Amino acid sequence: MYFEHSEKVKELQEKLTTFMEDHIYPNEALYEEQLKKEDRFSEIPKIMEELKAKAKEEGLWNLFLPESEYGAGLTNMEYAPLCEIMGRSAIAPEVFNCAAPDTGNMEVLVRYGTEEQKKQWLEPLLRGEIRSCFSMTEPDVASSDATNVQTSITKVGDEYVINGTKWWSSGAGDPRCKISIVMGKNDPDAARHEQQSMILVPLDSEGVTIKRLLPVFGYDHAPHGHAEIEFKNVRVPASNLLWDEGKGFAIAQGRLGPGRIHHCMRTIGAAERALELMCERVQSRQAFGKPLADQGVVREWIADSRIEIEQARLLTLKAAYMMDTVGNKEAQSEIAMIKVVAPNMALKVIDRAIQAFGAAGVSGDFELAANWANIRTLRLADGPDEVHRRAIAKYELAKDYGRNAVHARQ
Amino acid sequence: MYFEHSEKVKELQEKLTTFMEDHIYPNEALYEEQLKKEDRFSEIPKIMEELKAKAKEEGLWNLFLPESEYGAGLTNMEYAPLCEIMGRSAIAPEVFNCAAPDTGNMEVLVRYGTEEQKKQWLEPLLRGEIRSCFSMTEPDVASSDATNVQTSITKVGDEYVINGTKWWSSGAGDPRCKISIVMGKNDPDAARHEQQSMILVPLDSEGVTIKRLLPVFGYDHAPHGHAEIEFKNVRVPASNLLWDEGKGFAIAQGRLGPGRIHHCMRTIGAAERALELMCERVQSRQAFGKPLADQGVVREWIADSRIEIEQARLLTLKAAYMMDTVGNKEAQSEIAMIKVVAPNMALKVIDRAIQAFGAAGVSGDFELAANWANIRTLRLADGPDEVHRRAIAKYELAKDYGRNAVHARQ
Amino acid sequence: MYFEHSEKVKELQEKLTTFMEDHIYPNEALYEEQLKKEDRFSEIPKIMEELKAKAKEEGLWNLFLPESEYGAGLTNMEYAPLCEIMGRSAIAPEVFNCAAPDTGNMEVLVRYGTEEQKKQWLEPLLRGEIRSCFSMTEPDVASSDATNVQTSITKVGDEYVINGTKWWSSGAGDPRCKISIVMGKNDPDAARHEQQSMILVPLDSEGVTIKRLLPVFGYDHAPHGHAEIEFKNVRVPASNLLWDEGKGFAIAQGRLGPGRIHHCMRTIGAAERALELMCERVQSRQAFGKPLADQGVVREWIADSRIEIEQARLLTLKAAYMMDTVGNKEAQSEIAMIKVVAPNMALKVIDRAIQAFGAAGVSGDFELAANWANIRTLRLADGPDEVHRRAIAKYELAKDYGRNAVHARQ
Amino acid sequence: MYFEHSEKVKELQEKLTTFMEDHIYPNEALYEEQLKKEDRFSEIPKIMEELKAKAKEEGLWNLFLPESEYGAGLTNMEYAPLCEIMGRSAIAPEVFNCAAPDTGNMEVLVRYGTEEQKKQWLEPLLRGEIRSCFSMTEPDVASSDATNVQTSITKVGDEYVINGTKWWSSGAGDPRCKISIVMGKNDPDAARHEQQSMILVPLDSEGVTIKRLLPVFGYDHAPHGHAEIEFKNVRVPASNLLWDEGKGFAIAQGRLGPGRIHHCMRTIGAAERALELMCERVQSRQAFGKPLADQGVVREWIADSRIEIEQARLLTLKAAYMMDTVGNKEAQSEIAMIKVVAPNMALKVIDRAIQAFGAAGVSGDFELAANWANIRTLRLADGPDEVHRRAIAKYELAKDYGRNAVHARQ
Repeated sequence: MYFEHSEKVKELQEKLTTFMEDHIYPNEALYEEQLKKEDRFSEIPKIMEELKAKAKEEGLWNLFLPESEYGAGLTNMEYAPLCEIMGRSAIAPEVFNCAAPDTGNMEVLVRYGTEEQKKQWLEPLLRGEIRSCFSMTEPDVASSDATNVQTSITKVGDEYVINGTKWWSSGAGDPRCKISIVMGKNDPDAARHEQQSMILVPLDSEGVTIKRLLPVFGYDHAPHGHAEIEFKNVRVPASNLLWDEGKGFAIAQGRLGPGRIHHCMRTIGAAERALELMCERVQSRQAFGKPLADQGVVREWIADSRIEIEQARLLTLKAAYMMDTVGNKEAQSEIAMIKVVAPNMALKVIDRAIQAFGAAGVSGDFELAANWANIRTLRLADGPDEVHRRAIAKYELAKDYGRNAVHARQ
Repeated sequence: MYFEHSEKVKELQEKLTTFMEDHIYPNEALYEEQLKKEDRFSEIPKIMEELKAKAKEEGLWNLFLPESEYGAGLTNMEYAPLCEIMGRSAIAPEVFNCAAPDTGNMEVLVRYGTEEQKKQWLEPLLRGEIRSCFSMTEPDVASSDATNVQTSITKVGDEYVINGTKWWSSGAGDPRCKISIVMGKNDPDAARHEQQSMILVPLDSEGVTIKRLLPVFGYDHAPHGHAEIEFKNVRVPASNLLWDEGKGFAIAQGRLGPGRIHHCMRTIGAAERALELMCERVQSRQAFGKPLADQGVVREWIADSRIEIEQARLLTLKAAYMMDTVGNKEAQSEIAMIKVVAPNMALKVIDRAIQAFGAAGVSGDFELAANWANIRTLRLADGPDEVHRRAIAKYELAKDYGRNAVHARQ
Repeated sequence: MYFEHSEKVKELQEKLTTFMEDHIYPNEALYEEQLKKEDRFSEIPKIMEELKAKAKEEGLWNLFLPESEYGAGLTNMEYAPLCEIMGRSAIAPEVFNCAAPDTGNMEVLVRYGTEEQKKQWLEPLLRGEIRSCFSMTEPDVASSDATNVQTSITKVGDEYVINGTKWWSSGAGDPRCKISIVMGKNDPDAARHEQQSMILVPLDSEGVTIKRLLPVFGYDHAPHGHAEIEFKNVRVPASNLLWDEGKGFAIAQGRLGPGRIHHCMRTIGAAERALELMCERVQSRQAFGKPLADQGVVREWIADSRIEIEQARLLTLKAAYMMDTVGNKEAQSEIAMIKVVAPNMALKVIDRAIQAFGAAGVSGDFELAANWANIRTLRLADGPDEVHRRAIAKYELAKDYGRNAVHARQ
Repeated sequence: MYFEHSEKVKELQEKLTTFMEDHIYPNEALYEEQLKKEDRFSEIPKIMEELKAKAKEEGLWNLFLPESEYGAGLTNMEYAPLCEIMGRSAIAPEVFNCAAPDTGNMEVLVRYGTEEQKKQWLEPLLRGEIRSCFSMTEPDVASSDATNVQTSITKVGDEYVINGTKWWSSGAGDPRCKISIVMGKNDPDAARHEQQSMILVPLDSEGVTIKRLLPVFGYDHAPHGHAEIEFKNVRVPASNLLWDEGKGFAIAQGRLGPGRIHHCMRTIGAAERALELMCERVQSRQAFGKPLADQGVVREWIADSRIEIEQARLLTLKAAYMMDTVGNKEAQSEIAMIKVVAPNMALKVIDRAIQAFGAAGVSGDFELAANWANIRTLRLADGPDEVHRRAIAKYELAKDYGRNAVHARQ
């Protein structure tokens, strides 16, 4: 057991922190201002491309992507603390080309894409020129059960025809978003987890219609957006299929491991910043003759927040360690655990900070309310908490508790 | 002890429920649609005035206002269950002219207004012709401590001059909002709770500037809005003062009792509806081969929600009963209790419903996310939970526990 | 709605409170002292019979038993607040002949007993001469599912033969305990809820063996005790059967309603006393230069405790009201709710008091630890929380939510 | 970051686990049986000395004590996972001579004892021949504030005279307990944290009276016991003083770090075993036609328990790591965190297990209830949760959040 990051990671942490302080935090408000008033989805705030250029210049680019020639050569464990720092600001991940859902999609392309697919989609994604979305969830069924998927992917000649409606295709509102990875059924008669396939669908394909962009607790999340997309007789070349027919579920499983850990680390970063804001606020505000920090439960909130953040971070790092050492499959119980822990922890920490901020906390003057709303979706995205708890329990119940459990005092 | 509503109340409950089913629920979406796209605060959806006319026609109008010739002659206890029904829909309270902050402001005018003030402001409010706001909270201080108020109200000749900045003046975004009740200090040297006064300030007075409308978790709450208002050398006639100089704190205390109980009852209505939606949803959605209702913790959520709603409702009714029988002052511990209980309860119930709805729950397709955000503000509005818990504890610690507590087994 | 007790009840409350203060609290320690050192189950502390005589003299006797010529003629609603007062002391219920499981057993005899059974067992119970126990739970099966019962009750000639092992037959340790109501199966082939019967078994019958007395968190609960009883070919006259063959489940259901509400009210009394003790303690102890009452979360604990007690009490009273007006069957969801609410509430309140008392709280110097342990069993006795929540949810899911739930903003 | 134990530790874990399975678990019931019926404190169960001999033989002896020639040469980090395994059984720590309060007392003697003191007391303790207690808490004051201590230690000639009453001197009930480390004030006029001294007081000194042994939730914890001890004009040689006058507080601080981490690790072991018992139980019991494992919230309990255990363990290991690398003082916030986390976590896990076991859970048939009660004391011992949270918050509020916290969107 060893609880310190390597020198390489410490240096990157410092570099990233400096970048955040010099370039990200001071430009958060500007980013918001630069969104077009009339149509917040029509154009990307200029400051974003400027920041991306700076980040690339400093080598803070594509830090994700373990075990791949395309990335920065970091393991999940090494990337985790960096991802946490990026999570401190809503605009940061994109600046470093480490934003969801692109990172997950790039991983899929790296692992399962053909050379041609890589050339056409992975490379511009890695350069930060285009963006992508992931179309899995459907409005009409409980998508927590992947076998409920209704969208069809049917081979007709040398093409696949896609029909169905997806929603929560996050990022599809962005004018730079060019490609979606779509999950659908190609063979409803195959074994339960071999009915699904994944396929690359350019968003400008005929028959693709973005019906609307869904708000999250009143936020439109422009220019990113969460799209409901109709696929109506959409035809793409058969070569757009990822891996093989019937491999959709397997790809999803592979994609979700790293995706989840990234979400968790970013979430921890957001919680950490909320705690900092709270500590600063309660020392600077007075009520009833003394700072809020000296009243009632405030210190209890701070202590509990610190405790919960520390624990969630350690568990997430352990999950990353296991992914690196025994593989995503063996780490699945740990990944499920952090998927439950991190968002729930962050929601509690941020909610306390909101309460400490008073009415300002629910407004747009601080990141708190927006972060809360965003993180609330993570208790549902990639499977609701309940499905993950089910998986953890299943794993636990299957253990052989050997000679211990049976021994009672009786 | 008697746990049933009077026949009069039961009839009103039924009438109101029918109105909700016939006219309110079916028009919720229309109301949203009729908001102008360009400027959601510029105009009131037409359907609102149509519904108001209908409600007035049916006698479902001004049901609040106990002990007053102006209202419907209902006690707080009688009004409470009706207020709960209205709380089931965000657009309902206004339809029945029972919306905050107008109800609280009308109560203030009834209790403390001069005949002239009543004629000018109370009457059009009672007719639903104009709307009003309440300007107490300030951005630069912790307003949970009323003595922190910085806005000044200074007598100059036969006028008062108001200077200061308020925010969370809810309703000031509405084009029909004509008047604000403003809290300020007129004598910083008076006793702690006699420094403040309240005064009527027409929003079209010179020097009144609405600086911005604050969002709540991304919602603009149009056309209502939560305004930050600057008062710069605003002059109003001395006759605009409410009651007397130094009575601001006393009026605030009097105003908040009924206001809080209304909020609580509406909140319970919102929770009740969320539970209904959840029950309906979990029976109609399938995952892993059976309805959500038959999985894991779902029934636990439903049971706990029912338990929590029932308890909150009973406590709120008891508080209303006490207000009617022993007065708002004697009921202050009970009012503080429900102020803490109702929003926290509703947030839990609605959050469970959101989780049961999956991604749809955080979107705008159901009232859930919007209600959650709205009710989250109630843990802060009219004093944060912590201030109310402090008051309850103070009351409890002052009790004489007589010969009981000292007896221990020792 | 009316939130005050009748004059009759108020007078009884006062009389009972005075009795508690004059006779119960001052003798709690004495009762404990009078338990024999060598065998705490061998003899009843003398003070108990003295106190019983006094209570009988003052007419504070058999206050339970609604709708019966045998009791004091109080409804459940009238009895509830009195039962709460008795719950403030572990020794009080017996003093007033209102202790479990006798009250439940007497109710069974009143409702389902023959004249002969009443004469033989009910009358001495009502006079407080003997005590009784209830033998339902079994060690080898999950007794939360009543159909799991394994004990057999077989008709042989004009006798029934009983075979099986029961545990948690509370009160069987008491030397005065003469009779048990035993639940068993007489027909495993009948319909699921008609397989069981209940029968009166004198504890001195041949074949009845008390195997051991079970501790509860280290407490032996002497002289009451929780017995594991073996019934081995125990023969009793056929006339000992209660009601009829196959009616065991129906009697159990009928017995449990009042029994549960009594437990809940007593539990509320215990919580109330814990809160009083806590309030007294935190004002009299100093740390870091000020009373505990002025530190950190202590006032939060007090406020939350008050809030939780008030809510649990109101819900319990409402359940009592419903039992009186619409009957135990219609009140079953409310009874299930309080069965979950009251013990969980009291455990929280008492745990906070323990924490406020420091190490003294877990010791025997105050009632706190003993009450906590005792009440912890109530989350299991008469069915675990989970079974009750299941029942509440089932009831909720069966409701017709009419035209409301289907209306969404969509 | 590295999440695996060294080979040395893994081997010891395996060896210890085997010992537990071969010798400890099978003898838990025997130990209880061998306690004398008449006076459970009069004699030590024979099996204990037999097991100690076996453990010593296998080299599983004095595994605690980092940085000392006396111990096994393990760091805190290396000892932690072993301590966890011992925590799985109430009788195990003593078998390996790793039981509280002896370990803490031995640490004090190693760090601050004179050669003479070591020879007289440390050596027989290390050999497991005698036992010791620690007398700090007092009945009449809130001992969470160490400056409240009232016991006096006064120099008279070449002796110190001790006067005062202590309680919760755990272990003083054991007939082998020969020595107490007593905390008292020698100079009430010195600086706040320099008024106290610690001194060695043989329990057979004149004037030392064990007044009583305090129960914990009904458990007597025989033969260990929690003593209330009166020190009345007790005279010991001046050479019995530890370190120096005024160093009592400093020694206490030094003693508590390792003591806390040991408690935490043992607590985690107890929680782990409770989870195992629960997993085993819910798969073997049926209700309503299926195993408990397939009902309602049971899997939620299992998943949450696993999640909470994992997090608490990682945080405890990190605290151990910090103690080893940056020292107990720098690790104080982490030590405070685990002091709060571990007992609260274990209480939740064990409470769930109790609920899953039904009535058996609160009885003596399984370790669950006894462990719960024991661990409940750890939320108070060595300072209540609230004092530790206060310390964590203080540490947090003193951080320099640099350029991050001040940046808001405003």
